[in-house]
Amino acid sequence: MSDRSMVLVLSCPDRPGIVSAVSSLLFEAGCNILDAQQFDDTETGQFFMRVVFDRLEHAKSEAEIAASIEELATRVVMTFTLRQSSAKKRIMLLVSKFDHCLADLLYRWRIGELTMEVTAIVSNHGREHLASTDLGELPFYHFPVTRQTKMEQEARIWQLVQETNTDLVILARYMQILSDGLSAKLSGRCINIHHSFLPGFKGSKPYHQAHERGVKLIGATAHYVTSDLDEGPIIEQDVERISHRDTPDDLVRKGRDIERRVLARAVRHHLEDRVVLNRKKTVIFTG
Amino acid sequence: MSDRSMVLVLSCPDRPGIVSAVSSLLFEAGCNILDAQQFDDTETGQFFMRVVFDRLEHAKSEAEIAASIEELATRVVMTFTLRQSSAKKRIMLLVSKFDHCLADLLYRWRIGELTMEVTAIVSNHGREHLASTDLGELPFYHFPVTRQTKMEQEARIWQLVQETNTDLVILARYMQILSDGLSAKLSGRCINIHHSFLPGFKGSKPYHQAHERGVKLIGATAHYVTSDLDEGPIIEQDVERISHRDTPDDLVRKGRDIERRVLARAVRHHLEDRVVLNRKKTVIFTG
Amino acid sequence: MSDRSMVLVLSCPDRPGIVSAVSSLLFEAGCNILDAQQFDDTETGQFFMRVVFDRLEHAKSEAEIAASIEELATRVVMTFTLRQSSAKKRIMLLVSKFDHCLADLLYRWRIGELTMEVTAIVSNHGREHLASTDLGELPFYHFPVTRQTKMEQEARIWQLVQETNTDLVILARYMQILSDGLSAKLSGRCINIHHSFLPGFKGSKPYHQAHERGVKLIGATAHYVTSDLDEGPIIEQDVERISHRDTPDDLVRKGRDIERRVLARAVRHHLEDRVVLNRKKTVIFTG
Amino acid sequence: MSDRSMVLVLSCPDRPGIVSAVSSLLFEAGCNILDAQQFDDTETGQFFMRVVFDRLEHAKSEAEIAASIEELATRVVMTFTLRQSSAKKRIMLLVSKFDHCLADLLYRWRIGELTMEVTAIVSNHGREHLASTDLGELPFYHFPVTRQTKMEQEARIWQLVQETNTDLVILARYMQILSDGLSAKLSGRCINIHHSFLPGFKGSKPYHQAHERGVKLIGATAHYVTSDLDEGPIIEQDVERISHRDTPDDLVRKGRDIERRVLARAVRHHLEDRVVLNRKKTVIFTG
Repeated sequence: MSDRSMVLVLSCPDRPGIVSAVSSLLFEAGCNILDAQQFDDTETGQFFMRVVFDRLEHAKSEAEIAASIEELATRVVMTFTLRQSSAKKRIMLLVSKFDHCLADLLYRWRIGELTMEVTAIVSNHGREHLASTDLGELPFYHFPVTRQTKMEQEARIWQLVQETNTDLVILARYMQILSDGLSAKLSGRCINIHHSFLPGFKGSKPYHQAHERGVKLIGATAHYVTSDLDEGPIIEQDVERISHRDTPDDLVRKGRDIERRVLARAVRHHLEDRVVLNRKKTVIFTG
Repeated sequence: MSDRSMVLVLSCPDRPGIVSAVSSLLFEAGCNILDAQQFDDTETGQFFMRVVFDRLEHAKSEAEIAASIEELATRVVMTFTLRQSSAKKRIMLLVSKFDHCLADLLYRWRIGELTMEVTAIVSNHGREHLASTDLGELPFYHFPVTRQTKMEQEARIWQLVQETNTDLVILARYMQILSDGLSAKLSGRCINIHHSFLPGFKGSKPYHQAHERGVKLIGATAHYVTSDLDEGPIIEQDVERISHRDTPDDLVRKGRDIERRVLARAVRHHLEDRVVLNRKKTVIFTG
Repeated sequence: MSDRSMVLVLSCPDRPGIVSAVSSLLFEAGCNILDAQQFDDTETGQFFMRVVFDRLEHAKSEAEIAASIEELATRVVMTFTLRQSSAKKRIMLLVSKFDHCLADLLYRWRIGELTMEVTAIVSNHGREHLASTDLGELPFYHFPVTRQTKMEQEARIWQLVQETNTDLVILARYMQILSDGLSAKLSGRCINIHHSFLPGFKGSKPYHQAHERGVKLIGATAHYVTSDLDEGPIIEQDVERISHRDTPDDLVRKGRDIERRVLARAVRHHLEDRVVLNRKKTVIFTG
Repeated sequence: MSDRSMVLVLSCPDRPGIVSAVSSLLFEAGCNILDAQQFDDTETGQFFMRVVFDRLEHAKSEAEIAASIEELATRVVMTFTLRQSSAKKRIMLLVSKFDHCLADLLYRWRIGELTMEVTAIVSNHGREHLASTDLGELPFYHFPVTRQTKMEQEARIWQLVQETNTDLVILARYMQILSDGLSAKLSGRCINIHHSFLPGFKGSKPYHQAHERGVKLIGATAHYVTSDLDEGPIIEQDVERISHRDTPDDLVRKGRDIERRVLARAVRHHLEDRVVLNRKKTVIFTG
């Protein structure tokens, strides 16, 4: 993506003329639309749109375009985000002892597959638990937590999010439940990987529950974190076939593969501004 | 399969020498093993085996072989079934108004894909509700049911099962819940297609529940019927990807495709004696 | 879809302002855009767009809207189709002896899943070969063919297409290769189901070829027919896992399931104007 | 797996009594069969069997059991391998510049998912090309190669295989074609990941070929290396759905995910003695 490419994501109550207004605004500002996708939720009457456009030569400045959109947004009660396609989001990774998702995300970042800046890696366990993962020069923080110190530990996390200008927090198999307060502060910018096909098996040890029930497929779910545990808006899910021969350990092993690819896809969607919250659900403008 | 081919399925507490005893018995009876699969459930200590064998020329008679196995079974506390591979199981289909599973099973039966005899088609609604399906000359029974007449209606079903020597009852989208009594009578020989990926969405209108929750995959589950609704041993499951664009009606449509292929696979496994009950789960010796 | 809902599909060389021009035209004509998807092929510089819109009360008439679009099309060298969403396409089915795709499409049509009119069923074999399929009152034509009579037989097909105002011809396992002439006449409106995952195994008996090669997945491909056999633009593909235990007959059986669902999806995409030809490829605006 | 657990894999012309002979031999040697799978290739008359068994207390020694099997093998013209389940195979990894498969296999090895010893990592490029992968203390060899020095370079590889007692060579995106000579030497113990769904797109740049053809699914294939390039016995394949929006670069990216999981599964099957060569195909005794 060139530096002249921008992404506009908007949402407003549906009414005739929105697409026309947006596309005309961009045309008159000297921009060429490269990709546009929209969705009209007829149940709620809410309209969603994602537009990727190029600022052509002699186009208006970014600030002028933003001002025009702002003006339109006021008129039609629209929320929107606008940013350069090439701008990198700033990501913080929270992890406990299982590091397969962390290792996978870092590898994808190193080879340039995920366009982001890693601001910090935070764990409630010491660095020695991540021995299989190459953290390189990335800042690592050990923030231990107990039932008694949970509030203080979350305060440290929140402070770090602010100091590092973190845009997105990824719970990459972070085995702690965020408090309602922190969940609210990170609303829409904290992704969790739930090691189960929600809503099949909530709670702890979902693979063991799945084994116990004798299901023939297991899965994983990436979702935004909300105060209602395991109930946040779902971004991505996938499954794999299992058989009666699979032990709980086999399910955990197969689960690792599903978890890391589901989380990586969800993160990629988020980084590219393809996910829009629609109350308790998501709209995903896939590539 | 030739008429000389037989299928033996057995289960017993695991102990050394079982495979040796069975395979030697068959060898000495003049049989050649074509396929053998086994499973040792180390959690419960139960052993499962499926053997397909050919009675060679000069082999012992079926009755003699059965007697030998009976004798072994007594010795090692083993349960087993033994039958000719080419023998057709007798199937009764129960259906309500949605006939996509019924139509699909009948088509597979007509082209010889499912080797079975259809003893009867029973519905709680009139034949006119199955207008999209060609029932041909198959006996059709309209057994209406109300809350008050449920016991009598089930008695009619059970009588028909007995009169027709039905081996397997298939609930092909039969929208009535069987009583505990009938479920118990049909234990291990009544398959239901649950129009959902269990245990995700139990209860009524699961596709609407799935839409409400915003999941990214929907599925279906074929399972044996037990008195515990939606909790019977699972035989087969499958899923399909959906998006935010899919309405509840779209989910119902996509669900039909999943339901019919999941049910057809489960029925096929059962007809070929590939499914063995293992308490609340199943062992599936796939082809 | 109400009768006031319309579908516009267009293609033209990409240039700034197209989306703006189309959406403004529709807004000014008193229409509300329900769904819009576009694709910009940066390799060829060709732009594709599909718009579903509702004519609101006091909107311009269909004819006036068509005239406006026609006028725009002349200006920007654009090809387009415009039709009522609820209008049913007229479909002719060609089949030989295998009727699983035919039976499947007819069932989906009967329960209202595929919105279309069936103009005729044509086979090079007699009706008795379709005994497993309920043709109902649909007009059936037996057009036998030999190497010598191929030209005449195709002339009869083409005459029937014209007489019945057929919009789409579906080769539902029609085991004859259309001549270059007929392929050209039906360009973009004749869909074939190739019983293989193209381009893996072209030619005859692809499942036997797959068995011979020992592949672990088999598939099927739905594509538009062109004079270049097995090389037409691909609309849809799917696969299923197989194992060393599967005989060529098992592959044929599993293949039937893949073929019918791949063909049904492709037909559905076509009926809803979701497929646009892009030289030797397709753009699919999925739902 | 305990140290008393062993794996026997055998193949011979099919004849009555083989299963009986093997299972009786093991029973009489004081062993308990934990898992047994077999396959009878009726096309070629070849029989394949994999048996996992525990040596119980007072069982015969490993050497005595091996001698008994050897004696049986001579009698029925059988080939077999017998080894301790817990014994680790010795693996050499060959790689060029793309390291996603290498990184993935090493991660799985570090967390104990793949039970193996890594003898060496060999590349035709310098270590600096693998900067995204943590090689740790593993011996790395840079064996550059040109058209002129191919024979010498392969001699160095072969010498290293011998010196390190390597059991299996993995071509983890090694972009060189092995000579017929080296392929023959490594027959049945060299696995390649082909970055394509064979036999769809052979030759170079298969993802670009797939993009050009407009297919809707891409895949990858893990196979044993033979002198006939891209034609070796297939161990595992998988696919992923793509759309017209995917550029060749997107296919390469999605391909990486498929390649690494397909190769990891194939390696796992091989390490656990689940793959048996059957002429140009494989028998896979899946877990």
